[in-house]
Amino acid sequence: MPSPIKIDPAELRDYVRDLFQSRGVSADDAGTIAEVLVWANLRGVDSHGIARVPRYLELFGTGEANAEPKIVVHNEKGALAVVDADRAAGPVALTRAADIAIAQAAQFGVGWVNVRRTVHTGALGYYTNRIAESGLIGMGLVAGMPNMGYEGAAGASVATSPLSIAVPGTGQYPTVVLDMATAVIALGKIAQFKKAGKDLPAGAATTADGVPTTDPALAKIPLPVGGAKGSGMSLMFELLTSVLVGEPILPNFHSGVSGGKKHRQNAAIIAIDPSAAVAVNTFTSDVDATIETIRSLPVAEGYERVILPGQRGAETFADRSRNGIPVPEPLWNELKTAAETYSITSPTVGAR
Amino acid sequence: MPSPIKIDPAELRDYVRDLFQSRGVSADDAGTIAEVLVWANLRGVDSHGIARVPRYLELFGTGEANAEPKIVVHNEKGALAVVDADRAAGPVALTRAADIAIAQAAQFGVGWVNVRRTVHTGALGYYTNRIAESGLIGMGLVAGMPNMGYEGAAGASVATSPLSIAVPGTGQYPTVVLDMATAVIALGKIAQFKKAGKDLPAGAATTADGVPTTDPALAKIPLPVGGAKGSGMSLMFELLTSVLVGEPILPNFHSGVSGGKKHRQNAAIIAIDPSAAVAVNTFTSDVDATIETIRSLPVAEGYERVILPGQRGAETFADRSRNGIPVPEPLWNELKTAAETYSITSPTVGAR
Repeated sequence: MPSPIKIDPAELRDYVRDLFQSRGVSADDAGTIAEVLVWANLRGVDSHGIARVPRYLELFGTGEANAEPKIVVHNEKGALAVVDADRAAGPVALTRAADIAIAQAAQFGVGWVNVRRTVHTGALGYYTNRIAESGLIGMGLVAGMPNMGYEGAAGASVATSPLSIAVPGTGQYPTVVLDMATAVIALGKIAQFKKAGKDLPAGAATTADGVPTTDPALAKIPLPVGGAKGSGMSLMFELLTSVLVGEPILPNFHSGVSGGKKHRQNAAIIAIDPSAAVAVNTFTSDVDATIETIRSLPVAEGYERVILPGQRGAETFADRSRNGIPVPEPLWNELKTAAETYSITSPTVGAR
Repeated sequence: MPSPIKIDPAELRDYVRDLFQSRGVSADDAGTIAEVLVWANLRGVDSHGIARVPRYLELFGTGEANAEPKIVVHNEKGALAVVDADRAAGPVALTRAADIAIAQAAQFGVGWVNVRRTVHTGALGYYTNRIAESGLIGMGLVAGMPNMGYEGAAGASVATSPLSIAVPGTGQYPTVVLDMATAVIALGKIAQFKKAGKDLPAGAATTADGVPTTDPALAKIPLPVGGAKGSGMSLMFELLTSVLVGEPILPNFHSGVSGGKKHRQNAAIIAIDPSAAVAVNTFTSDVDATIETIRSLPVAEGYERVILPGQRGAETFADRSRNGIPVPEPLWNELKTAAETYSITSPTVGAR
């Protein structure tokens, strides 16, 4: 296997920004999208990183994503706001939402910001981590198009809607960031099993018709984590996001009305100010003490260490910030082709 | 098998109230505890119902629960409050928290109320359902004593901390109420497998030392749902409740300091006012349309129907409200003994 192409994160960020700017996205918004996608690569979440650039370009091309959105913020009661994204790309709308949530939390103790009518939110952990970096607790929920099972139902019924929570400590340890889908297994993981010629674990996925399978070639629909628990969470996130902003996804998707299956997502981004509940020093040192307790738990057989949510991502972040971001050659060539059309120079490739 | 004793819910509620009042709890607080416990029985969650009365009486006896708490509410920033429960029984502290959250949400759009230093919260769904009955979205998180595994660690590491979310519709369907622990299996379910002489499913529990087992006699520690997902949620709920109010449970529990294993719980109760985001009629009719969509999904093989979170509980509630609450004879005798000490008359028993 050839050693993968590695790209400097800052150069990659500029490159991706230029690509979006060439499609009519403002410099600011293009920079935000690049920042969120490259952050996912830095954290090792390659499925939500620059691998999405071709799809984003396509969404801008068809107009499903709006390159020049007129984002409107409604805020009738202090601590709850609605960001009408006007089909802005998720990174643009959700970064805005996170910053509004931070400001509201500073004033009211809590900021709850719903985002309506966005497309592909990117890695949800980016926004909760952004809130944690400002010293607040961040939470995020997203609902999207049905691609997961629902306990007792056959076929794609609800979305693999993610939940993310990030909590700041003193800075001695990486920020604790939970960022999880409500499915047992990601679609990307199913593809990895297929490539490796391995069977899926039982109970992880079904065929498109809803028949349980361990054959990764037939597996099209991930099952919800914990059965009714995972599908219940996914449904609740749809109610707390899409339905709360008057944009329910499930009824139109399943009734088969025109446009009901068009890609769209809704989200909620929440910030909580710990200083409204407890002295900040007490809070951050208690967070650290809890992290230390988890790290010191006796290790179970078959494991090397006990880790915190987000710890592996932080380790990958440190490594890739130093050594560059690995990019698969087919993706790299695809990006170069997209760039050449607009005479954008591609960054230097090579070991660093 | 003898047909179980059945008791009228209203009589049972008065009886339980009298039992707590005889132990020095005020009539109001005793009524609240009785209401929450009997609600759990009505919903079919017998593990969180009057089966807990002997344990509650014990907690009041030892002083771990405070019969005459001085509850103090701190609210420095509008939308976030802390209820210092002074070791009040969970139903007293969390009902208070739910009512404060409702009032804050009416004013600010969101009310986030942390409860510190309470004991045994009872069925979390009671409080979120209470909020939904007032037309708002209810959410609840609880953290308690470690009794569950943590991905990669051996032994009881974190709590089976529950999450509950309740969302009001038009009233045409039962309120959607998710109320789930972060464990694969409840301790009560393990006991049922043991009684039935059946093996547990693989991956559900470990021995006290953290060795995976399917033998219900050896199984002492439930495993987290979805591995790192369930244990990550449990850890995050501890940070969002206990640590946010300066009462971290994990460090003292695991360090073995004196008192570190004494029973205590912390919680967060959240209310969200949909009218701050969308017209209320739109919201409730979209909730109903989403419920109808889920009910109409194609049924998977091996299932009879597709149900919503909380639907089975609502059906049991209707049945038991009419036909009485079944009470196992050993529990009934235990309650009668406790009652006779204080000359409290037990309710009529019998088919109705």
